[in-house]
Amino acid sequence: MIGGDAAGMSAASQARRMRGPDELEIVAFERGHFSSYSACGIPYWVGGDVPERNRLIARSPAEHRERAIDLRMRTEVTEIDVAGARVRSLDLETGAEEWTSYDKLVIATGARPIRPDLPGVDAPGVHGVQTLDDGQALLDTLATTEGRRAVVVGAGYIGVEMAEALINRGYEVTVVNRGKEPMSTLDPDMGRLVHTAMENLGVTMVNDAEITKLLTGDAGRVRAVATEDTEYPADVVVLGIGVRPETTLARAAGLPLGDHGGLLTDLAMRVRGHENIWAGGDCVEVLELISGRERHIALGTHANKHGQVIGSNVGGGYATFPGVVGTAVSKVCDLEIARTGLREKDAHRAGLRFEAVTIESTSRAGYYPDADLMTVKMLAERRTGRLLGVQIVGGEGAAKRVDIAAVALTAGMTVEQMTYLDLGYAPPFSPVWDPILVAARKAVTAVRRSAP
Amino acid sequence: MIGGDAAGMSAASQARRMRGPDELEIVAFERGHFSSYSACGIPYWVGGDVPERNRLIARSPAEHRERAIDLRMRTEVTEIDVAGARVRSLDLETGAEEWTSYDKLVIATGARPIRPDLPGVDAPGVHGVQTLDDGQALLDTLATTEGRRAVVVGAGYIGVEMAEALINRGYEVTVVNRGKEPMSTLDPDMGRLVHTAMENLGVTMVNDAEITKLLTGDAGRVRAVATEDTEYPADVVVLGIGVRPETTLARAAGLPLGDHGGLLTDLAMRVRGHENIWAGGDCVEVLELISGRERHIALGTHANKHGQVIGSNVGGGYATFPGVVGTAVSKVCDLEIARTGLREKDAHRAGLRFEAVTIESTSRAGYYPDADLMTVKMLAERRTGRLLGVQIVGGEGAAKRVDIAAVALTAGMTVEQMTYLDLGYAPPFSPVWDPILVAARKAVTAVRRSAP
Repeated sequence: MIGGDAAGMSAASQARRMRGPDELEIVAFERGHFSSYSACGIPYWVGGDVPERNRLIARSPAEHRERAIDLRMRTEVTEIDVAGARVRSLDLETGAEEWTSYDKLVIATGARPIRPDLPGVDAPGVHGVQTLDDGQALLDTLATTEGRRAVVVGAGYIGVEMAEALINRGYEVTVVNRGKEPMSTLDPDMGRLVHTAMENLGVTMVNDAEITKLLTGDAGRVRAVATEDTEYPADVVVLGIGVRPETTLARAAGLPLGDHGGLLTDLAMRVRGHENIWAGGDCVEVLELISGRERHIALGTHANKHGQVIGSNVGGGYATFPGVVGTAVSKVCDLEIARTGLREKDAHRAGLRFEAVTIESTSRAGYYPDADLMTVKMLAERRTGRLLGVQIVGGEGAAKRVDIAAVALTAGMTVEQMTYLDLGYAPPFSPVWDPILVAARKAVTAVRRSAP
Repeated sequence: MIGGDAAGMSAASQARRMRGPDELEIVAFERGHFSSYSACGIPYWVGGDVPERNRLIARSPAEHRERAIDLRMRTEVTEIDVAGARVRSLDLETGAEEWTSYDKLVIATGARPIRPDLPGVDAPGVHGVQTLDDGQALLDTLATTEGRRAVVVGAGYIGVEMAEALINRGYEVTVVNRGKEPMSTLDPDMGRLVHTAMENLGVTMVNDAEITKLLTGDAGRVRAVATEDTEYPADVVVLGIGVRPETTLARAAGLPLGDHGGLLTDLAMRVRGHENIWAGGDCVEVLELISGRERHIALGTHANKHGQVIGSNVGGGYATFPGVVGTAVSKVCDLEIARTGLREKDAHRAGLRFEAVTIESTSRAGYYPDADLMTVKMLAERRTGRLLGVQIVGGEGAAKRVDIAAVALTAGMTVEQMTYLDLGYAPPFSPVWDPILVAARKAVTAVRRSAP
């Protein structure tokens, strides 16, 4: 196993469940200091909601070793020799190198944060938040820096979560975003709602802004983020521009990569064309079922499922990962954000004709206390009325409703079939017509009225 | 339209949307004082969460009349003359009777609370909570009664909600329940969790107890509820034993009723064998899709959907109600309760062989603040692995997860298909494996291991 986080160690654990130590020897290499941790939890640790780092660690190296998994920490794999069926590793503490041969190889090298190739991007005070090591480095900077001005670059999930975390820490936060609105995983009309919420939190939101350089001051530390025409003073900078599959090793070994730079696998998570090599987690591309295209989606929940599938197959069983529909949920303080399926531009790109409708409702019965506003956007294919996607922005109870649409997408339901779904109703939980049903009804009308 | 609440007035409104006043004359009879209100909201009004009665009224009689619906309040239909295509009505204020003929008739007479035929059941201080009039009468009693001891008879949805409402009002509450555990819509092992939660709230929970009479005292007012061997002192008694379809008129008119006393309809909500009579809401039986049987389920969300379907059909359009999967959600203070599909005894009765598994997880990532315990029970058919039902008891965010199962049931998914559902994941919303997925995985294993 190359990589000791979600996908790799899930695979190792599942393989061990299926085959005892006498039947299967498992060696896992991890270059970092931590195994099996929740990278998705880092913003909440930085923000103070999670009190200490170790809470994010699901299973320590010692616990893995107790299960007869030979987990070698701080050991980086530097080469995959596919023809020789062996990997070369480097002990980062001692500098020792060695070759380890394999019968079966699992690549779970994860993703690396995108660091724009700009002057000053490596200056002290500029941080990514991809690994626990990154999170610790950021917290160390926050603890030793006097100024309270933070700039977050990027306004996707990590960007908005880090903006909230830094607001919680008492920082003055500016988010500099290349897109028209924050959360480019939503259509801009829905992203606009996130924009407003972030401003209400006290975040300065700068959209349509391309960063040109990072300016440094005393001792080479970052002091500002510059765009074409403006400088944003910064005592700390967090890069939340997104991630790319970490496939340097795989590329060098000649393994097949997709358009997004991720490894390409079959449905059993076997690297295409390689009977004895599997790959999963943030380093692979996944089949997105609605458009039928490969996408790169770095999410812990997929990584765990991949690991489960790989472990079953490596252990001699049979399992497949059927693909994803593109579900994601997040929040900025009390505002919940969710999406699944296709956005308008995805649907266009996939060659689909569709209707898009948006409705406003509440997450509880309107008369019930704390009934929060909830906006639902729904896309349905013309003619067939098949559901194509849902986006939700709203108060408490809004985000996880996206699961209704995720299941309906998986099942290939039409919006008309959805209008009579028997969803849970009681005043503390939903209006008598759940907002998803209200959106589906409006989508039915739109599809009926539309030209083919 | 006979009945001016959810089903009747939804039907009237939808028919009016489709046909103007020149094309369709709509007369609606309602014997009570209120139209189009949320009966499901009554416990929250009594408990004080909803500050005033009018918040529960979605649309007043005047608003309906503005939409050219001739809504006659306090007017009871006393006879349906099917052969003559007319109904006889009685103005409850003036005592005037008249016959009104119809081309199309909609029966939406709702349900009536079960009142056990016991001595003292009609004594002052004994209340049902089916209608706004009932709720007002209960509140009047609470306002004028000094004692603070309340007995709730029955521990279904209404019973547990009323127990919470009375606790919120500062009452000492005893719930007397015929079943082995509260919430007989759950299996007893799951009902047990509700039992514990209610005791933690300070409710005295008496199970396996059959009431034999209600004892009266001063001025004939109720003073205690008696079982075979015990008396429970009561200053006020709330009956929450459940409801039956109100089909007295339909029965007298010879219309087809099912095993549960509800009207039987086709999928267009037309009364079977009667081209021009529709029925919907709490007075009908609905097709429960998993067992393929008719059931009586009194729920505002179904009533609204029925009304929508009936209104479309009466207005000359076409719509059908495909049936239900039996979803229901509720809460007792912070404990959320949900179910969909079949319980163990339903599955047995339907002739199904199945595996039942139960898991414990949390509604959020375990390390995230306020990650509440959540118990999920899942039933899957042997051999096919088809999902049969889900029950959930847990903290915030638990109940509405039942919708995932409701859609999966509707789509006929197997538990194996469910294990890879792309559900929303982020630490504030879910562990990396959503509890529904954890249950599905365990169910897969159980099905595999089981004999056919």
